[in-house]
Order: sequence, then C-alpha cells, then structure tokens
Amino acid sequence: MSLSTQNESAPHHVVIIGGGFGGLYAAQKLGKSKVPLKVTLIDKRNFHLFQPLLYQVATGSLSPADIASPLRAVLAENKNTSVVMGEVLDIDPQAQVVKLKNHLDISYDSLIVATGVSHHYFGNDQWSEQAPGLKTIEDAINMRRRILSAFEAAEKTHDPKFKEALMNFVVIGGGPTGVELAGTLAELAHRTLSGEFTNIDTKKARIILIEGTDRVLPPYHADLSATAKESLIKLGVEVKTSAMVTNIEDHVVTFKCGEQVEQIQAQTILWAAGVKASPMGKVLGDRLNAELDRVGRVIVQPDLSIANYPNVYVIGDLANYPHQGDRSLPGVAPVAMQQGEYVAHHIEAKVQEKEPTKFKYWDFGSLAVIGRHEAVVDFKFIRLKGWLAWFIWTFVHVYYLIEFDNKLLVMVQWGWNYFTHRRGARIITGRYLQVLEEMEGIRAGGLSLETREPAEVA
Amino acid sequence: MSLSTQNESAPHHVVIIGGGFGGLYAAQKLGKSKVPLKVTLIDKRNFHLFQPLLYQVATGSLSPADIASPLRAVLAENKNTSVVMGEVLDIDPQAQVVKLKNHLDISYDSLIVATGVSHHYFGNDQWSEQAPGLKTIEDAINMRRRILSAFEAAEKTHDPKFKEALMNFVVIGGGPTGVELAGTLAELAHRTLSGEFTNIDTKKARIILIEGTDRVLPPYHADLSATAKESLIKLGVEVKTSAMVTNIEDHVVTFKCGEQVEQIQAQTILWAAGVKASPMGKVLGDRLNAELDRVGRVIVQPDLSIANYPNVYVIGDLANYPHQGDRSLPGVAPVAMQQGEYVAHHIEAKVQEKEPTKFKYWDFGSLAVIGRHEAVVDFKFIRLKGWLAWFIWTFVHVYYLIEFDNKLLVMVQWGWNYFTHRRGARIITGRYLQVLEEMEGIRAGGLSLETREPAEVA
Repeated sequence: MSLSTQNESAPHHVVIIGGGFGGLYAAQKLGKSKVPLKVTLIDKRNFHLFQPLLYQVATGSLSPADIASPLRAVLAENKNTSVVMGEVLDIDPQAQVVKLKNHLDISYDSLIVATGVSHHYFGNDQWSEQAPGLKTIEDAINMRRRILSAFEAAEKTHDPKFKEALMNFVVIGGGPTGVELAGTLAELAHRTLSGEFTNIDTKKARIILIEGTDRVLPPYHADLSATAKESLIKLGVEVKTSAMVTNIEDHVVTFKCGEQVEQIQAQTILWAAGVKASPMGKVLGDRLNAELDRVGRVIVQPDLSIANYPNVYVIGDLANYPHQGDRSLPGVAPVAMQQGEYVAHHIEAKVQEKEPTKFKYWDFGSLAVIGRHEAVVDFKFIRLKGWLAWFIWTFVHVYYLIEFDNKLLVMVQWGWNYFTHRRGARIITGRYLQVLEEMEGIRAGGLSLETREPAEVA
Repeated sequence: MSLSTQNESAPHHVVIIGGGFGGLYAAQKLGKSKVPLKVTLIDKRNFHLFQPLLYQVATGSLSPADIASPLRAVLAENKNTSVVMGEVLDIDPQAQVVKLKNHLDISYDSLIVATGVSHHYFGNDQWSEQAPGLKTIEDAINMRRRILSAFEAAEKTHDPKFKEALMNFVVIGGGPTGVELAGTLAELAHRTLSGEFTNIDTKKARIILIEGTDRVLPPYHADLSATAKESLIKLGVEVKTSAMVTNIEDHVVTFKCGEQVEQIQAQTILWAAGVKASPMGKVLGDRLNAELDRVGRVIVQPDLSIANYPNVYVIGDLANYPHQGDRSLPGVAPVAMQQGEYVAHHIEAKVQEKEPTKFKYWDFGSLAVIGRHEAVVDFKFIRLKGWLAWFIWTFVHVYYLIEFDNKLLVMVQWGWNYFTHRRGARIITGRYLQVLEEMEGIRAGGLSLETREPAEVA
C-alpha cells in the first residue's frame, strides 16, 4: 500500500537506497538543492560507515563509533530529507514503488540504488565461517574477537602444535584491505602486544599475506607494489604472491604457487579477496531487466541509469561503469562520491528540464597504508612512498571522515597510538568467552590429536 | 591437574579472580610489591571496565572501548604478574587450587575473589527479557540498540497507540545508575535527537523513573535527594517515588503507589533496581562454608578473609563487610579500590611475617550526575549541587579512568557533547535490524489489536 502518492503540485521525490559514500553524497547534494525536491534515504543501518578504516576496528586501533556517523545527525539540517531505517525487499518499477519489510511501501519519482557489495568466496561459501570478511561493523568486531582470542588461547595452551596454529595469521587477498590488515596485524603482534604475555612471545607470531596475482596492490603502478611488498616484509609479514588458495578446511589453508602446493595451519584466517553485488543487484536484474556482470553488479548507462529506466540510477560499488577507460571504474570511495554528486545534479537538471552534463570520473589517484610511516600514493602525475605518502594518507582519511567529532576522535587516537604504539580498542566483546573456549576445544578435534595437557600458568 | 606446585623457594603465589576495581587495585599494588610475590589475575574479559560510566555507553555518548582498559596493557609493567582469560568454575580450598573451564587448574597460596554482582529481579527473572539491566558492555550495547531502535520504529509507524508505547521509556530503580540513565535519556530524547526525525517529535518522549523508596538516591542526604528530583523534573523526567513494581508483561509496567495501581505501556523498560552476588558467591558458600547474605554476598571477617580460610579474601561488591558503621559498606568503586589495596598490604605483611594493619574504609563521600551542569556531591563535611558538583563529578571520573588514553578520549568526547549536545556513539550494532523488526512485529501481537496500517513516509 503506497501512501505518498504523487500529485501535480507535490515536489519530485527522490528515494535513495543505501547510506554509503554514494548514497550519502547524493543525499547531501539533493538536501541542499534549490530545486523543490523531497528526499528519502533508506538504510538498514542508522549510520554511515567509513569503510576504508574498518581494518583499524578489526585490529583494535579504533572503536566502531569512531568511523560511523549517525545518518540522521549528518542530514539533520536538510529539511526536505527523511531517513528511514529498514530493509528494502523489492522494487516495482511500473508503480514506481520501493517495498520494505513489514509492508512499508515508498513511492518514488527518481530512485538511486547504492547498496554496495559483500564478500565473494568464488563458489566456496563454506570457507566463510573459518575465513570471515570485512564489510560491516559486526565483521570488524568478529575479526577483533578472533585475533585477540587467538593470543589469549596461545597464552593458555602448552600443546606446541596448537600454540603454533594460534600464532599463525593468514590474510587472503593482497588488495588495499588485505595489505592494510596484514601490516596492522604485524604491528599489533610484534609491537603493541609485545611484553604483555607470560607464556608466548607475540613477536614470533607469523602474519602471512596470500595474493593470487604476481604482486600486492595489483591496480597500482608496479613500482609501488614493489615498495608495498618491501614495507610489508620489513614489518614482518610473509608475502606470498602468485598463490592461489584452493582450500580452507579444519583451519588449514591450502594454496598453489605454480606447481607447488603449500599448506599453513592457522587458527585465524581473514578474507580480503573478492566482492560480489549486494542482493539489490538481483532485484534490479529481475524487475528492471538490468544487465548484470559476472559478480552481479549492474552495468549502467553513461548517465548511471538503468537501460529503459531513466529514473532509476545505480551508483557506487554496485554499479559497473564501463564507459570510461579500458576497464570498469574501480570500487573505491571516490568513484561512489562523484557518482552520488553527479546523479544529484542529473536529477536536478531533469526536474528543471535542463540538459544534464555527462558523467566523468576524475581520478585523483589511489592511496594505501602499510604501517607506521609506510604508505604508497599513486597520483597520476607523481608516485610517493614512505613518510610523505603516510602523511598524505592520514590527512586524506581524516579529512573525509564525515562528522567533525569523528575527525577529532580519530586524530586523538591515532596520535596516541603513534607515540605509544598502544591500541586502546583491544577489547573482546560479544560472544567473548565462547570464541576462546571454542578455540580451546578445537584441540581435541581436528587440529591436534595429541593428548591434552593442562597449561602451566605463570 | 595442578602444575604450578609450590616449593620452599618459590615465591608466594597470589591468585586474583576478577579484574574490576577491587581485583585490579589489588593486582596493581601486588605487582609493584618489594616482597617476592607471583601474581595471577584471572578474568572472563580481557579488559577492566569502568562501570560507573556504562550508562553513557547505553545512551550513545561513549564507545565501549572508551571505558574499557585492556588488563594486559594496564599490568604490562608488572613483571611478576600474569593475566589469564578464562572462567573459574570451582575452588578446592584443601588443595589450594582454582579450577577453570577446559581443565586448567591454578594453585594459589593466597586467593582474592572479586567477581562482583549481577542483576537481581527479586524472584521475577522472567522480567529480565523486557527490562534488561546494565552491568556489562554487552548490556550497554543492548540498551543502546533498544533505545535507538524505539525511535526508529516510532518514526515508521502510524499506529498512534504503538507510537506512544515506543516513545515511553521506563527506568526502574532510583539509585545512581537509574538517576543517571533517566537524566541522560531525557537529554538524548529532548535535545540530541530533536529535529532529526520527520514523523515524530522526540521532545514528546516520556522518561519515567520508578523508585520503591520515598526518594531518589536513597543513601544520600535528604537535601540532595530533593535536589536530584528537582533536576530530573527540570530535564523532563517523570519521577515516581514510593512506587513498587509488581509486574512487567507484554511491555506494560504495573506498579503500586500506596493503594493505587498504575500501568504504563512502554516498549523500552530498563532495570536499575537490584543486584545479587555473582556465581562465585555460591562456590565460596559450598566449598568454604562461607556465610552468605540474602543476595548471596559473602559476609567477610574484619580482615576481608573468609572464616577459617585466612588465605582466601573476598573484596568489592561480592563482599558484605558489616564491621564498620550501622550497615554494610555500599557496593561502590571506592570501597572495592580500598579493599583491593588493603588485601594487597595484608598479604605482603603475612609473607613478611609482620603484623597486618586493620581495614578501615575512608568514606570521602558520594557523587551522582543527573545531567548537564546538574550533579549532587555528598562529601561528609559539605554537600554540593548544580554546576560545582557537576564539575567535581566530571573531574573525579576522568581522574579515575585507568589509562591515560581513555581519559583523553573521554574528555574529548565529553567536551564535544557539551558544546554541541551531540552524542557520537549513537549507533545500532549487533542484532541491529532484528530488534527494529521485532518491535514492528509486536504490533500484530499483544501491544495493539488495531489493524495494521502502512506508515506514510516523509
């Protein structure tokens, strides 16, 4: 049952699904528009998440709220804008209605779909339990719990094989997330936690990064990939390139390097390897006959709309935009931000019956951080590494954190971490004891068949 | 199987169960002792929790990690100290062994039990699901999720009765926690969230505080109770004193004021009314014949030991210390801290075969905060309220936050909240959508029998 029926005098209603970089930037632009518009932003969460820093939550450097800005607070000034917390189940493009769970229908004049992507295990979804990915706050808290619990369990056990498996951390995928996770894990184990345990030496923890192509950060210039690899090795990360993971089972990662098959027993395995479209991709395929690529993303028109549905746009990671350069635009925040702003302009132009401009992505370059003082920056005209790159990375990330209090908090914590090597958010929450006890219980199962001995403490 | 067997040359081994104020203060003192000692601190959690500020996590002002300090980090300098994360199931006082889950035994020479208290529903444990309490990080995140989800659901519904129930918040218990929760909830609803919603006016949210005795903050001087009540009313809290809750069912709180029976329909009901001993109380009763009070706390000897077990001490909230003043010492942080330090001294003296001093609690007074610029301070020689009390409250709490980075972070966030009325940690995490949908689903059930209508959005 749709209620917000349009009549001639009602302002043009733009509905946005998803409050990530794409959806939020569109909402901010439309909310400040001089054209009479009504805007509704729908999200499953009540906050915008600054995903590029999620790995810092997973490794105990930042708190979830430090990188999350309540959507209502961000958009409070925009009086033409409503925020709805809920899950979209379906779209009816003929009736121009978005259908939420619990029988709530919202009609639209223009629709922007910006629901992003989730993890992709390339047909091996059974790996997800042992090798979780990193897309949500809950994912990050889960990773943090596993990483910290592994050290706690290693402290308690006297079974050397089990202890070794607990001290092995495998990160699968050498893109920016994998590189950042591996680098921070190495700093956590080899510096922050060093000296805090009695029965283990956390400096002996192995961090192993596995990448399928022949270098880490594959989209970057080869120079920077080489620098990143060097920096990772200096931090104590073992980098395996041209290594294809073929199985993850019983806490053993199996991978192929050429003809050679290797295995690593590791309690903690983190997935940073692939993405696929969120469920809205399928809805758009089914209901609007949208063309999807092999990971389910929507192949969009040059103006980011769906073919035959000029009032339905797809932006951000969910969109496959093949109209610029040799390949599709990458799934990074700047693309989503620029697409969000473009679609806002496009809708404003249409409502005013003006000719819209064409979309063009301005690529200012890429950044990735590896560790303290170590980052790579690939601006098109210049490539930087080391200190200066690290400084630019820090500045850019603080600059883009949506709300001022987030910026301040993150800066205070980074400053503190920087000078002390401490990480204040190293807390195990949620199913805290269960995870530790499951780890302890594993020993009796697949991981080690030795008779269980009690641990000596202190 | 006990491994750390004592021999003549081994240092005296002190085992501490629980890393709250009592256990941690004992560990810190013993860790810096000049007497040769070995210290093991066992906790289910990997952090010390600054419980007095938990209500600020529950209301979205602070993040969990802001009030949690990793135990290993706090104790890293103390080379005689080990930290074990795990759950104690049993104590064998004859063998002098503490038994953890997963067959880990730890032997002791002296044992300090400081496991605190949990919620008490006075025989109505079925109330706990609808009226959760506030003792752990998870409790606080659960409360935050419920509070924020209630506003989100109210924004979406058009059923006036259901909307009213969603906008009613009942806090049961008028002690410091209840007063602080109610005051902060009023500020959250009437100031922070005001203007962020389209279909509801959060200023119309009702915050109802129910207290069984004839005044709020019953242990304080009557003057200050009166001030606290006034301040709460000014903030928009409805204060019901001499009101005994008789039932909580189907989101309806029933309470008696004298002969009169009242009912309030409220989606969000928060419990701050009673505590009972943690499970270790029963273990001490069963195994050491410790005398327990009616809520299961251990009645201790003047030196905080258990009768007939001079090397087993109980401190903090779990201890009932009846040897000073008219009644037992209150369950507050300063008592636990002083008891922790005393027991550390007592053990040092015994090891050195010196005469230990007697325990005496130095009561410096009590503090409670009601809201912005509103607090009450009950120093024995002077009673303060308003601005100055609020300033003292803030100073004392920041001073006692264990680690420096916590202090800095909390100060930055309080400063920010203070000047902007914002609350940065207003994020719904964990079972985020489920709670909202459960609330929406309730309407079809007990709460309202009206036909469900779709909500109009924007």
